[in-house]
Amino acid sequence: MTFITENLAKEKSFRDPIHGSIVVDNQIILDLINTPEMQRLRRVKQLGTTSLVFHGAEHSRFGHSLGAYELARRICNHLQRNYPTQTPGDGLWDEHERPVVLCAALLHDLGHGPYSHTFEHIFNTDHEQITRQIITGSTHVNQILRRVSPTFPDQVASVIDHTYPNPQVVQLISSQVDVDRIDYLQRDAYYTGANYGLVDLDRLLEVMHPYAGGIAFEMSGMHAIEDYIVSRLQMYLQVYFHPVTRSLEVILDHLLMRARELYEDPQVQTSFEPELLRPFFNNDFTLDDYLALDDGVLTTYFQHWTHANDPILRDLANRFLNRQPLKSVVYDDTTASVLPVLRQLIDEAGFDSHYYTDTNASYKLPYDTYRPLETNPQTQIELIQPNGELVELSTQSRLVQSVSGHKQGDMRFFFPKELLTTDNQGELFDPIYTAFQAHLQNNTIIK
Amino acid sequence: MTFITENLAKEKSFRDPIHGSIVVDNQIILDLINTPEMQRLRRVKQLGTTSLVFHGAEHSRFGHSLGAYELARRICNHLQRNYPTQTPGDGLWDEHERPVVLCAALLHDLGHGPYSHTFEHIFNTDHEQITRQIITGSTHVNQILRRVSPTFPDQVASVIDHTYPNPQVVQLISSQVDVDRIDYLQRDAYYTGANYGLVDLDRLLEVMHPYAGGIAFEMSGMHAIEDYIVSRLQMYLQVYFHPVTRSLEVILDHLLMRARELYEDPQVQTSFEPELLRPFFNNDFTLDDYLALDDGVLTTYFQHWTHANDPILRDLANRFLNRQPLKSVVYDDTTASVLPVLRQLIDEAGFDSHYYTDTNASYKLPYDTYRPLETNPQTQIELIQPNGELVELSTQSRLVQSVSGHKQGDMRFFFPKELLTTDNQGELFDPIYTAFQAHLQNNTIIK
Amino acid sequence: MTFITENLAKEKSFRDPIHGSIVVDNQIILDLINTPEMQRLRRVKQLGTTSLVFHGAEHSRFGHSLGAYELARRICNHLQRNYPTQTPGDGLWDEHERPVVLCAALLHDLGHGPYSHTFEHIFNTDHEQITRQIITGSTHVNQILRRVSPTFPDQVASVIDHTYPNPQVVQLISSQVDVDRIDYLQRDAYYTGANYGLVDLDRLLEVMHPYAGGIAFEMSGMHAIEDYIVSRLQMYLQVYFHPVTRSLEVILDHLLMRARELYEDPQVQTSFEPELLRPFFNNDFTLDDYLALDDGVLTTYFQHWTHANDPILRDLANRFLNRQPLKSVVYDDTTASVLPVLRQLIDEAGFDSHYYTDTNASYKLPYDTYRPLETNPQTQIELIQPNGELVELSTQSRLVQSVSGHKQGDMRFFFPKELLTTDNQGELFDPIYTAFQAHLQNNTIIK
Amino acid sequence: MTFITENLAKEKSFRDPIHGSIVVDNQIILDLINTPEMQRLRRVKQLGTTSLVFHGAEHSRFGHSLGAYELARRICNHLQRNYPTQTPGDGLWDEHERPVVLCAALLHDLGHGPYSHTFEHIFNTDHEQITRQIITGSTHVNQILRRVSPTFPDQVASVIDHTYPNPQVVQLISSQVDVDRIDYLQRDAYYTGANYGLVDLDRLLEVMHPYAGGIAFEMSGMHAIEDYIVSRLQMYLQVYFHPVTRSLEVILDHLLMRARELYEDPQVQTSFEPELLRPFFNNDFTLDDYLALDDGVLTTYFQHWTHANDPILRDLANRFLNRQPLKSVVYDDTTASVLPVLRQLIDEAGFDSHYYTDTNASYKLPYDTYRPLETNPQTQIELIQPNGELVELSTQSRLVQSVSGHKQGDMRFFFPKELLTTDNQGELFDPIYTAFQAHLQNNTIIK
Repeated sequence: MTFITENLAKEKSFRDPIHGSIVVDNQIILDLINTPEMQRLRRVKQLGTTSLVFHGAEHSRFGHSLGAYELARRICNHLQRNYPTQTPGDGLWDEHERPVVLCAALLHDLGHGPYSHTFEHIFNTDHEQITRQIITGSTHVNQILRRVSPTFPDQVASVIDHTYPNPQVVQLISSQVDVDRIDYLQRDAYYTGANYGLVDLDRLLEVMHPYAGGIAFEMSGMHAIEDYIVSRLQMYLQVYFHPVTRSLEVILDHLLMRARELYEDPQVQTSFEPELLRPFFNNDFTLDDYLALDDGVLTTYFQHWTHANDPILRDLANRFLNRQPLKSVVYDDTTASVLPVLRQLIDEAGFDSHYYTDTNASYKLPYDTYRPLETNPQTQIELIQPNGELVELSTQSRLVQSVSGHKQGDMRFFFPKELLTTDNQGELFDPIYTAFQAHLQNNTIIK
Repeated sequence: MTFITENLAKEKSFRDPIHGSIVVDNQIILDLINTPEMQRLRRVKQLGTTSLVFHGAEHSRFGHSLGAYELARRICNHLQRNYPTQTPGDGLWDEHERPVVLCAALLHDLGHGPYSHTFEHIFNTDHEQITRQIITGSTHVNQILRRVSPTFPDQVASVIDHTYPNPQVVQLISSQVDVDRIDYLQRDAYYTGANYGLVDLDRLLEVMHPYAGGIAFEMSGMHAIEDYIVSRLQMYLQVYFHPVTRSLEVILDHLLMRARELYEDPQVQTSFEPELLRPFFNNDFTLDDYLALDDGVLTTYFQHWTHANDPILRDLANRFLNRQPLKSVVYDDTTASVLPVLRQLIDEAGFDSHYYTDTNASYKLPYDTYRPLETNPQTQIELIQPNGELVELSTQSRLVQSVSGHKQGDMRFFFPKELLTTDNQGELFDPIYTAFQAHLQNNTIIK
Repeated sequence: MTFITENLAKEKSFRDPIHGSIVVDNQIILDLINTPEMQRLRRVKQLGTTSLVFHGAEHSRFGHSLGAYELARRICNHLQRNYPTQTPGDGLWDEHERPVVLCAALLHDLGHGPYSHTFEHIFNTDHEQITRQIITGSTHVNQILRRVSPTFPDQVASVIDHTYPNPQVVQLISSQVDVDRIDYLQRDAYYTGANYGLVDLDRLLEVMHPYAGGIAFEMSGMHAIEDYIVSRLQMYLQVYFHPVTRSLEVILDHLLMRARELYEDPQVQTSFEPELLRPFFNNDFTLDDYLALDDGVLTTYFQHWTHANDPILRDLANRFLNRQPLKSVVYDDTTASVLPVLRQLIDEAGFDSHYYTDTNASYKLPYDTYRPLETNPQTQIELIQPNGELVELSTQSRLVQSVSGHKQGDMRFFFPKELLTTDNQGELFDPIYTAFQAHLQNNTIIK
Repeated sequence: MTFITENLAKEKSFRDPIHGSIVVDNQIILDLINTPEMQRLRRVKQLGTTSLVFHGAEHSRFGHSLGAYELARRICNHLQRNYPTQTPGDGLWDEHERPVVLCAALLHDLGHGPYSHTFEHIFNTDHEQITRQIITGSTHVNQILRRVSPTFPDQVASVIDHTYPNPQVVQLISSQVDVDRIDYLQRDAYYTGANYGLVDLDRLLEVMHPYAGGIAFEMSGMHAIEDYIVSRLQMYLQVYFHPVTRSLEVILDHLLMRARELYEDPQVQTSFEPELLRPFFNNDFTLDDYLALDDGVLTTYFQHWTHANDPILRDLANRFLNRQPLKSVVYDDTTASVLPVLRQLIDEAGFDSHYYTDTNASYKLPYDTYRPLETNPQTQIELIQPNGELVELSTQSRLVQSVSGHKQGDMRFFFPKELLTTDNQGELFDPIYTAFQAHLQNNTIIK
């Protein structure tokens, strides 16, 4: 292990508004931060279209990556101070895991592209897979990781892959309460100004307790976990699932979809050349192609597209850049049957419903016990009793039990706000608008 | 109405760490703040024994009273700006209510004594009743309120009494989401350092919406209310119900109980003269007697009592002043039968279980719909739809529904920590201690 | 005046991490916020290259513009509540000025381009002039402002121009303590995490006191002003003048300079087409051309330029995108003579000193009395005595007096960090490096 | 050294609103915190009468003591990580000093009594001397310290005495930038709500650099020190020297003085028995007498004194308890000659000027170089260059230089606010009041 030999004689620190100081005490970590692959994350917003709703939240994935690293570092210090392993297999903390934990925490978001969720949807990319490629492929990051050992990049990748043998390490990076989730919850709360997202960070870290099967939490810290789960739920309901955010994602999605259709249409004489996107339109891109993308590249093309010949592409590009969201209403299974009627009216009003409407279901499962037969089963949270026994969280917490297993969120239908016009100026469409509005009440579709 | 005529030409402000500035723009309010009755609240801690557990929380009821006033002022501004009444009975906000709201908010805690909960238990006082007496009796406060009108003190008292005719006014001062609760939640969170208690204050105030029956909340603010309810629950579970806080209240309670017994015992030659407490020991006190009490008066007597002849009084006084809490374990209905056994062992170990043990049940009902047949029915929270319809909160919020009607908390048994001794130094009592400890596991009584 | 007629029945608010809620109560303001010209500011970082040093500070000019508006709104409320004019010319606050203050505050930064300082340097643009063009030209913003009155756009522009007749209005928007500076100081402190930049905001606003010649501050608020001046100085010294920030600006400047040279060189076959920059390279741009620019457009071209044929353009683009700053050392007038020697050595080491070195002098005048004969004279700050007399700040404050008139900052020389290599690996250049380093000590040039 | 052997297997933590968690990892520290001597500090306010002006600041010396300890702990960690000694005398950090640093930091305020400044003035006590007595005398604290070694209490006391041989240790506890000052600055800023007192805490600790003569600061941290010095100055000018705070101290001082006079007057039949104060009135007190005092004891006697026969004692007690401050005006050497005239008028108005007036000069020296010939010379602050050279702060910092050596503050004359009556109700005294007021302008005495 040559990680320790690269320890810095003197710590360096990055000032961070959430954690105060992010402390780097090893040359490997410092060099990883300075790679082009990590620096690219400065140009990819953490919250994508959410920054158009919460104007304070324009932070990038770079700061979040540093924050996840810092949490990992603090947790390692806590585990090593309070639970150092004495004999192999005693279920306590093995300090040799520190390098892989720190590197996995720092690098876990490397593969994110611009407006990740929508981009992946249109171009069939997978940010986790790309993260692994960056770590194990021919990159600056890989070269630095190899200084630890030739197999170290694969070890780091396997943590992100959940295949690393030590479950403590895997859970620190990826579980219900991992450094990724804790940092983004705090960071997004700070930048949006949503203090309901704040959790008792110091306490959460202090009650972490290693055991053979992973990381449990001391019984006395149960309320801190409860608060974490509810704070996270609130951030989902109030911030991440905000209807306007989702509306702008719909516009973005349809904009890229339209661009792709035009690109593939041999009839269309494109007035623009989306050079950096071409490999993705062609479904044939290299890692370097991917790493050349960022938020600014996309919005630069959108800027060009506001002058495109195609009126839909032009209009959607303008709506996105100038933040003109669609409106939305809630519906459920019983009122879903109204959607075709609404789409019909929207078409009649002159908006192609293929591009100007959409539905979106956003649901969050606040917590659940481990259900191995489900797709994407959640890891459950274990509490550890004074005598060492483990108990699953929802058996102890009335609050968690009451939200456990119940998804929260809604289904929404998106449409042009013009349909809500009520004044007399749009006389021509008045009957259509009136018909449309008759199906809505209290922001909900009615039958 | 002569309140307006006493408006100040220029606003004054008090710097407050929670609200920034507390703005006073009326001479009546300023004069009320400067009364001896209000100033006394500086010498009564907001959280009593909790400050012995959360050392940061040593704030007094004075700051809280100013904070409740400031919230009331901001809400009046909000209601007047956005929902001014047009015609009597339209259910909107009547600006003439401002004086009574501001005064009731400022004065609502006037009757609190030192360590209120325990003091009331031992001396059968009632802080709400005393608040009314201070407002309507022969006091500086009353004299100032009369400048508004001869009936104004009674109006203010009736708000605190819940008998004031306008339900909007009553609910602003006393309901599930009133200025009292909102302020103490934020204030206690700030001073303890428990950021899980922080709520989205601006939002909470912005979504308040008057209607004929009181104050509802806009549908779009539902999540802010959810967060408020959960934050409050967390403050109860983590701060107000902290086992050590309750343990110190047990000691305080038994200390005062013992003093009372000694006072009433003709055999006892008291070596002290608890002059300011005498009227209370005698069950015959005036309002002036009550207003002479504060935290310092009690602890000064405790200081004296550490030199008392009675060993129990002496010991309990020392335990309270020097913060030597009892230990506690959880029990439930099935293990309550073990309590006599434990008390017996404690007596055998040399601690009079009458003074050195106690039980305490602390439960909080996070939320409930209005149940008029219950004792102390909770007011329910109404949401208002865009079309003006009211809906009760738990019908809309899955989170609130899941905690609604279910009390959370625990029952604890308190005993001297000596019983948990495990080393060899207490050889004499070893068998007793061992027998005692056999009934406990994971901080819980077992059978 | 039709501004008031567009007041909203119900206030809207934007959550802001610095000010809590930004409250909009007028349709004109709302419509201005929703213009493409305002929305573009979301894509222009407030602090440019500073975000590469303080990673938390990635916020845009959009949030700052809302913040400046909110401060203006609060100050208008304060002035109207406490100092309403009674008779014309009494030097008190005229509520009719509110619309022009709010609009000027909101729109004051409209003309900022990407990396404003450097961009203006290379392309000879002037963001203040462009702000005026956007307000008075054929834009969405102008169309909305005209709803107030046909001359209203010119009035708003004249505030930004400092030619508006009422000096109170001008000073609120542009003076030593204006809504622009107060907001950016607080905002930048929040996002960088530099709490030394925090000022006592509530107090600063509360002590504003109108007089015939502008806005003075109450004597009792003198310390709040002192703190503001020192906090601002600290932000300049620690954040805005950070050597690495300035280093990255040097790289950006040289990168754009090199691109311009290549563009103008008929010999060069450019492998790229900087379409959106072309009007600027040609010194012939329209307002629409300008409004199409943002940070992302620039970095997208830089992305392209990393594949350019020209090695210098390629290298500088990489250095900027991947954050590889130049190093810097301090010099002064006595050691400036060493610079040619250092440049010579740098050329010998293989770096074209024209592109790889630069000097930069950053100085801030913390405060000064008004000196009308100077270029860009600072407005001075007046304190108002209880009896209404005005006194200039530095005559009363020892602290301000001691920093008044003295610029603080330094001159730095920037060069490739390779020159600081000390190990044996760069053997070839060793003698050059050694010679170079002999001129430096303690990050300073020595003779 | 048996300190290490008492390290806890698992760290404990105290939640603190300023530092997050205060971490205790050693049984000695835990036992010290639980002594009666430390617990008494919970009943002594950190800021005395200041809490009557800044109502949020009601915190005690207990939390500050924990905070100073926590800072000491973090600094030891920093020094040990980054500057561990290699060979004796190398000027680096010797980890063996940790116990004495931690204990001295925790215990440095033990000897403070209630309203320390005033109490010492009246009763000629000395809190530093009493701190040493508690550490070295027959106390719980002493008993625990002896577990480290028989000489350890003396070592801890010598740190507080500045006679401990290692200057690094002494400076951490007592110098211009020590754990005491850093903590109280942050703590008082938090509780008053005065964010101008906030400093860049993480940075301040990170740039500490040991050298043979003490603790220097890295050159790169100079601005953090500048900010610290100015923040401290602001706290003095705005909080600690607040005129109303000083006015209430005048009342307190005169109240105790009057009580003492009455106590000593054989003619007076005291209607009260200030039992716990008697040893101090008699100038003959034991350590136990001293440790029985706290804020509550004093205010309890004041409560009694509001019923005293002596009208002055009664009135002053009421003024203090009910917060009725004297008014004050500024004067200087040239206007001091007016004071006898004013006192004369005050006597004529019916207020005994001996008890109802006073003068107070409050000056703070923001910074100074070390001047060994002065009484109480300040330690100066050293910066350390990259090459190890030390330079004194004010030679490098223009800001510090400009405030260095210049005391800031003012002289004030205190008098009953009745003298400022301007209405017609006090007709009888009108001529006196008018004469008095003629000597004042803009809160200043004029000739």
